[in-house]
Amino acid sequence: MSTVVDYINENRQRYVDELFELLRMPTVSADSTKKDDLVKCAEHLAAHFKSIGLEASVEKTPGHPIVYGQWLGKPGAPTVLFYGHYDVQPPEPLEMWRTPPFEPTIIDGAVYARGSSDDKGQFYTHVKAVEACLKTRGELPVNVKFLIEGEEEAAADNLDNYIKTHHDKLACDHIIISDTAQFDEGCPSICYGLRGILYMEIVLTGPTRDLHSGEFGGCVDNPANVLGRMISKLHDTDGRILIDGMYDDVLALTAEERKEFAALPFDQKKYQDEIGVPEFFGEKGFTQLERVWARPTCDVNGIYGGYMGEGAKTVIPSKAGAKISMRLVPNQDPDKIEELFRAYIKKITPPTVNVEIINHGKARPVVVPTDSPALVKARRALEKAFEAKSVIMRGGGSIPVVETFKQELKVPALLLGFGLPDDALHSPNEKFSLDNFHRGILTSAYLLEELAG
Amino acid sequence: MSTVVDYINENRQRYVDELFELLRMPTVSADSTKKDDLVKCAEHLAAHFKSIGLEASVEKTPGHPIVYGQWLGKPGAPTVLFYGHYDVQPPEPLEMWRTPPFEPTIIDGAVYARGSSDDKGQFYTHVKAVEACLKTRGELPVNVKFLIEGEEEAAADNLDNYIKTHHDKLACDHIIISDTAQFDEGCPSICYGLRGILYMEIVLTGPTRDLHSGEFGGCVDNPANVLGRMISKLHDTDGRILIDGMYDDVLALTAEERKEFAALPFDQKKYQDEIGVPEFFGEKGFTQLERVWARPTCDVNGIYGGYMGEGAKTVIPSKAGAKISMRLVPNQDPDKIEELFRAYIKKITPPTVNVEIINHGKARPVVVPTDSPALVKARRALEKAFEAKSVIMRGGGSIPVVETFKQELKVPALLLGFGLPDDALHSPNEKFSLDNFHRGILTSAYLLEELAG
Repeated sequence: MSTVVDYINENRQRYVDELFELLRMPTVSADSTKKDDLVKCAEHLAAHFKSIGLEASVEKTPGHPIVYGQWLGKPGAPTVLFYGHYDVQPPEPLEMWRTPPFEPTIIDGAVYARGSSDDKGQFYTHVKAVEACLKTRGELPVNVKFLIEGEEEAAADNLDNYIKTHHDKLACDHIIISDTAQFDEGCPSICYGLRGILYMEIVLTGPTRDLHSGEFGGCVDNPANVLGRMISKLHDTDGRILIDGMYDDVLALTAEERKEFAALPFDQKKYQDEIGVPEFFGEKGFTQLERVWARPTCDVNGIYGGYMGEGAKTVIPSKAGAKISMRLVPNQDPDKIEELFRAYIKKITPPTVNVEIINHGKARPVVVPTDSPALVKARRALEKAFEAKSVIMRGGGSIPVVETFKQELKVPALLLGFGLPDDALHSPNEKFSLDNFHRGILTSAYLLEELAG
Repeated sequence: MSTVVDYINENRQRYVDELFELLRMPTVSADSTKKDDLVKCAEHLAAHFKSIGLEASVEKTPGHPIVYGQWLGKPGAPTVLFYGHYDVQPPEPLEMWRTPPFEPTIIDGAVYARGSSDDKGQFYTHVKAVEACLKTRGELPVNVKFLIEGEEEAAADNLDNYIKTHHDKLACDHIIISDTAQFDEGCPSICYGLRGILYMEIVLTGPTRDLHSGEFGGCVDNPANVLGRMISKLHDTDGRILIDGMYDDVLALTAEERKEFAALPFDQKKYQDEIGVPEFFGEKGFTQLERVWARPTCDVNGIYGGYMGEGAKTVIPSKAGAKISMRLVPNQDPDKIEELFRAYIKKITPPTVNVEIINHGKARPVVVPTDSPALVKARRALEKAFEAKSVIMRGGGSIPVVETFKQELKVPALLLGFGLPDDALHSPNEKFSLDNFHRGILTSAYLLEELAG
């Protein structure tokens, strides 16, 4: 490995220069005037893949193209698929940027540019590790595939369709995604679990039209009052969800996981200041991180009914509704939870109103066992590259592509994020640590080696 | 009285013709192109007042003029003020009218025209009764004042300002308003009470910005969930309001009132079909009419928070709010109830959110004792004219001018409505029963006589 590491160290400045070239391309997928810039970037990447020794192609989609690359010179060895995206968020508001968003600028060891952390700087670590191996040894210890899309920041399902129709081409043993952040600076992290989601809406109808609250107030059950009563029945006072059967399939955290979470440098005060809540609240018996990473939720995401304008209007609303989503954890099944939710809502709906229950989408929770060989190997690679103890973490949200990979390719993804929590993704002054860029490349080189064994 | 009654009977057709002349004037106060029509109508009424023996004037306001008339020829006798309005609602949608809105047409004994029941046909009964008395006897048994405004259907405070600045001119012993409906056909009615109102809004703030429900769900108290919990604490399961002290000053209905209400021909099935609720709900121990007329309420008139658009968005809202109004009954004081509401909301707000409490207006409840001499006399007059047993009723809403009269002139108003519940006020095909018009005139004549005694 020493020649590979030497190569990475010797080419450190050139690697940064090449990243800057990528960052100068304004690949804003949501901006239709930037269509050609995305095509140019995809072609640039494919050409670069070829120049380092991969087979590569620009794959057309109804939207922005996908860049595919592969090296399959090790029959019988495992295959690793790296996913990333070359498109970026819009840079607006421009006046908030201290440096031009598409002119990468180094300040205090970090490069400031749109897309630096999300995701060009991150997926590029794997490209550069592969280059280092191929250039020094003429081969890789494993087979690799790259799937770099151009519509992660746009609402499109072209990648999903591509994955669904290219099972053989994308077949692999491991999937590595570097598109998230480490738990904290100096904490090389692996995210091994994500929550799923079930997003529902309930709409209550009482009277067939809005009623005058003077003429009718007192003799009809007001759907907005009823909605409040129903929402109050979603949790007990300890923050535990009251939907019958909600916790039946919840996989408890192991003692080891709880210990690892507890050891993380979590700054509750800083966290509270950042979101400004007067006080925290959550399910009794669990820490903040456990609540967010490993416990299901039932949150009202939106609530509406009656007169919502300025001032006053004296109506008893005909309708009132709430969008209610549940974050799900292993091993909850969204389909089963939807049934439980529907049954519970029907149970707590009084006979004075009619209820409509609507589904707006769902995703399964995903988790990789913390003792799985790939996860253990990834931790070793991280620790060598970052020269620090690695941590395991989970994410509270869902990453749709992880779910798609799980469903279509039957392979769980390891989230090997090299970003930092303050990278300002989707905001002005997005940045990426150049030290993390360098150590990320080393991590990837070590990981290729580890996964071969 | 027989000469007066004979005059009214003999002139029945002419009275209808004169009403039609009034109904042909398109006095839509909300339509600025009709300004001249309102002035013409006001001048027509003032001229008519003079022609029947009243002193009269058209009083300018910043909006449409007020018509004032008086006959003060009986020093020492009581003074009766009649309030009404000559403006009408817009007739739109025109295609829904079976006959032209400003071409009065008789069908099945009722005149169809915009403003026929609301309020030209109603206030005109008193004008015609006064004419009959003056023409047959040369004098009235009491002093009378007419205050006929042109902006009841427009959102304007010109009448309020006029009343506030003309206490002496408008001083009186009784106020009669005919601008409501009888309880049912064949039920000559007096509305002797109206509920007041207190309209508040509460706004809860948790995090300082909308949070991602995946990243934060489970560890912060969601303001929309909290709002639901708080709304659920406004009533107990018997529909009784839980605000501490809410019922302290509520004047209980007398056994006599409950008996009178119970005797009314209330068709619960018809009422339910009309508003379409699957089932009624209200405070335990009270009938539908008692709940609406004599019990306070606490209704959510509007509720909002988070994502209210189509589909799904996974946010934990920073804010959630509700507009909450309370209908008040004698002898509840809106100022005191506001204090109680604020104290209760503060008590049930958890420490996890901040609450803002806003007032959007208030009005006192009004009630005339059912054994007050004026009310008893009005019932006698009604029963003579309609040849049926009169009923007493209340209204669930507030009528702002009643509150203004009470505050400014210190005189409670008697609501002597000659309309019927199906008159289609504010809707296409508004109508007014010509039999009620005739009997209304007779009622007014009898009432003038009664009030003198």
